[in-house]
Formats: sequence, C-alpha cells, structure tokens
Amino acid sequence: MAQRKHVQRVNDNHRGEQSLEHLRDRLREFAAARDWNQFHSPKNLAIALSVEAGELLEHFQWLSDQESLTLPDDKREKIKEELADVLLYLIRLADVLNVDLIKSADTKIEANAQQYPVDKSRGSAKKYTEL
Amino acid sequence: MAQRKHVQRVNDNHRGEQSLEHLRDRLREFAAARDWNQFHSPKNLAIALSVEAGELLEHFQWLSDQESLTLPDDKREKIKEELADVLLYLIRLADVLNVDLIKSADTKIEANAQQYPVDKSRGSAKKYTEL
Amino acid sequence: MAQRKHVQRVNDNHRGEQSLEHLRDRLREFAAARDWNQFHSPKNLAIALSVEAGELLEHFQWLSDQESLTLPDDKREKIKEELADVLLYLIRLADVLNVDLIKSADTKIEANAQQYPVDKSRGSAKKYTEL
Amino acid sequence: MAQRKHVQRVNDNHRGEQSLEHLRDRLREFAAARDWNQFHSPKNLAIALSVEAGELLEHFQWLSDQESLTLPDDKREKIKEELADVLLYLIRLADVLNVDLIKSADTKIEANAQQYPVDKSRGSAKKYTEL
Repeated sequence: MAQRKHVQRVNDNHRGEQSLEHLRDRLREFAAARDWNQFHSPKNLAIALSVEAGELLEHFQWLSDQESLTLPDDKREKIKEELADVLLYLIRLADVLNVDLIKSADTKIEANAQQYPVDKSRGSAKKYTEL
Repeated sequence: MAQRKHVQRVNDNHRGEQSLEHLRDRLREFAAARDWNQFHSPKNLAIALSVEAGELLEHFQWLSDQESLTLPDDKREKIKEELADVLLYLIRLADVLNVDLIKSADTKIEANAQQYPVDKSRGSAKKYTEL
Repeated sequence: MAQRKHVQRVNDNHRGEQSLEHLRDRLREFAAARDWNQFHSPKNLAIALSVEAGELLEHFQWLSDQESLTLPDDKREKIKEELADVLLYLIRLADVLNVDLIKSADTKIEANAQQYPVDKSRGSAKKYTEL
Repeated sequence: MAQRKHVQRVNDNHRGEQSLEHLRDRLREFAAARDWNQFHSPKNLAIALSVEAGELLEHFQWLSDQESLTLPDDKREKIKEELADVLLYLIRLADVLNVDLIKSADTKIEANAQQYPVDKSRGSAKKYTEL
C-alpha cells in the first residue's frame, strides 16, 4: 500500500512536470537567468510567435493536403520543433500578460459552439458571419 | 475523511477538465459533430494557426513596448481570445499530426538551453548562430 | 498630329502616376500630413506588412486550390484590397530603408535562376537546399 | 541628334525592364520553364507571401525601433532579399488572380484618405474604427 502510494506520487509529479504551468516556470527561469525580460515585452513576444507560426507554415508550403498528412520522418521532426516553439512563445506571452491560457481556451470553445451551431455549420467551411 | 476525499476527487476532475488533453478531446468532438475533419488537413490547420497569430499581432501593431504592457481592458479581452484561438489550432494541429505538444516543448527547452548558454547569451538578443 | 502628341503625353503622365515611385511619394505625403512618421519605424512597418499578409491569407483559408482559382466577386474585391495593403506597406518599408524594390527584385530573380536550374527543378516543389 | 535619340530609347528600355510588368513577365517565364504553374494556385502563393513576410519580420525581431533604423550592412542585405521575395510573390499572386496591383493600390490610398481624415488622425495610431 505504501509502495503503491509512492508510485502514485511519482506519477503525479511526472504529470506535473509536463504541465503548462511547469513549462511556464521553466521559461521564467530561462529568461531571468539570461536577463532576457528586457526583451520580452508582449509586443516582442507576439512578433516572435507570429514568426514561428510562419516557420511552421513554411513546412507545408507547396504540399497538397494529402501530402501534409503523410510527412517524411525528417520533416515531421522539424515540424515538432516548430510546434514546440509556437507553444513556448504562447505560454511566455500569456504569462507576461497574466492570462490563464487553458481557461481562455475553454471559454473560447464555448463561444465557438454558439457561433457555429451544428445544424448550420455541418460540412461547411463558411465563417460564422456568413452562415 | 470521506468528505475530504470527495472534494479532492472533484478538484482533480476539474483540473483534468482544464488540461490540454481535455481541450484536444473537445476539439475532436467539435470537428466530428460538424463534419469538419475534411477541412482539417495539417496544411489547412497550419494556415489557420498563422492567420490567428497575425490577428494576435495586429493588436500590438503601432504600440510601444511600454504600451503593450499596459493594455486597456477591452483590448486585453480581445487579446485573450486571440491567444485562445492560437492555442486551439495548435492543439488541433498537433492532434492530427499525432504529436505530444508538452513533450515536444520540454525537449525544445532542453535544446534551447544548449544553444543559449547563460554566460554567452546573458543580456543579448542575438540568435544562437551569431553568439 | 499636334492633337495626337497631346494625347500621348497625357497617357505618359497617366502611366507615370501609376508607378511605384508615384505611390511611394503619395505614401510619404500621407504619413507627413498625419504626423505618422513617428510610428513608421522599419520594425513597425514590417509588423504591419506581416499582419496584412495574414489578412490576405485568411481569404484562402479552408479553400481548395481549385476554389482559390474561382473566387466569387465579393471575395475577389476584398482580396484586391489586401493585395493593395501589402504593396503599400512594402513600398513604405522599402522607402524608409532606402531600398530600390524593383532593382532588388531583379537581382533576386537572377539569384533564384541560379538556385533553381531548369533541369533540376522542373516539376519539383523542393527547396533549393534539397535539390 | 540621332545619337541622342538612341540613348533615350535605351534608357526607356532600361526603365521598362525594371517595371512591375517586366517582373511579372519574367516570373511567368520562370514558372513555365520549370513546370511550376501546377503549384502556383492563389492559395499556395498567398501562403508563400505570408511565409516570406514572416522571414522579413524575423530580421526585426528583438530590435528596438531605433535599432531597426540603423541596421548593419549584412543584415540590410538580407532584408533587401526578403523585401524582394515579398514583392515577387505579390506580383505572381496578383498575376494569377488577374489583378492590376498599381491600380488597386491607387484605389486603396484614396479609400485610406477617406478613412483617415488629416484632422482626426494627426499624430494618432488609432484604427479608423476607433477614430
């Protein structure tokens, strides 16, 4: 029983280490150790996020939709890195703005569900303003 | 004791509901219910992510770094929505590519720590290729 | 004969009025009249250009390649405006950086011709680094 | 006199060679020679334009507004290449959409002048919807 409890705690820690909060804390330490907070204005972080999103998109440039689903391994690895870069700048930007990302995303899904009712939007790629 | 245990379980569920995995699952259901998987190729989702990152950046356009730190409430609310949109498309793109976002971000921070050693990068905004 | 000469001169002026140089001059006057040069740092103009490119891309989001070739009239009008916005910020950015856009583009085509030799790149969407 | 006329004609040709129309024609030949028209859907060209705008923006990332005005020569050269890339994709996209770029830009400046009257917008970075 004691043993099982220990295992449970280790697993919890492990999950904790891989959470958004843990990444946020590591990015805080990363910036502080390098004296980078002077560069991390929301404006600059929004630029960085947009630049990374462009680098991510570059990997899909010229591919057909089908090709974008069946990527060679080396390309897939680079895409994983770009996805990570986007997430890291997103977490950092939310942090300096004191925004709870998960909560905001939760609220946004609710709003999207209102704007795109199932019956009106099924099978349609139209924007809600055109539904 | 039984009571406390119950509260604990509820809190755990609540945390669980606000995790990336929960958002991923809600987005899966959202797309399936609307028959949107046909539009959600990795290429199209990468476009959507980049477009949302541009909309986020637009809010900081023309602001000084200082102004980007002291945003009026209405602007801050809109920025929260854009941050949420970026996160949602990021989660969805990672999902269709079968990528573990948190794990990839964890790996990327390690790589960044190698590329930007504290002593070389302190107080500098130079790219690692120029250090 | 004198009449024809006059018509010719008017046409020439008209062409002149529609050149990049003319647009550059109009944008200079536009910014000066509104005391906007204080906002038009190269950094801010590069942000504006990227934001407009994102707005342009948004119009093609979720469309198939085929659909992007057969646009409804109202969408086509909006796309024309976004193309114009991108060109205007591009001209303005080149101006504050004192760059000759046409000359730079001419040089870049030459470089592209070297990087993408016809025999190696025919029918291929690969980047020159992968040829 | 005949000599001077010849020089004049050469200069005219030279200007002609550096016009948007000339660049458009060179890009048409470039794509045709490489059998690239199959990749040049408006959607794909809009992606390429956005990616290049992101690469341009990357050069200004982390710079202060002042630093973006006083760029070192090597950085300035790279920026010139990115400006050229943006222009080339813009010309190509306008071409496949059969849009007259200069005319559209001319029309857009007129519209901007209406949306931003001098007296209301002087010294202000506000969007016209907020004036």
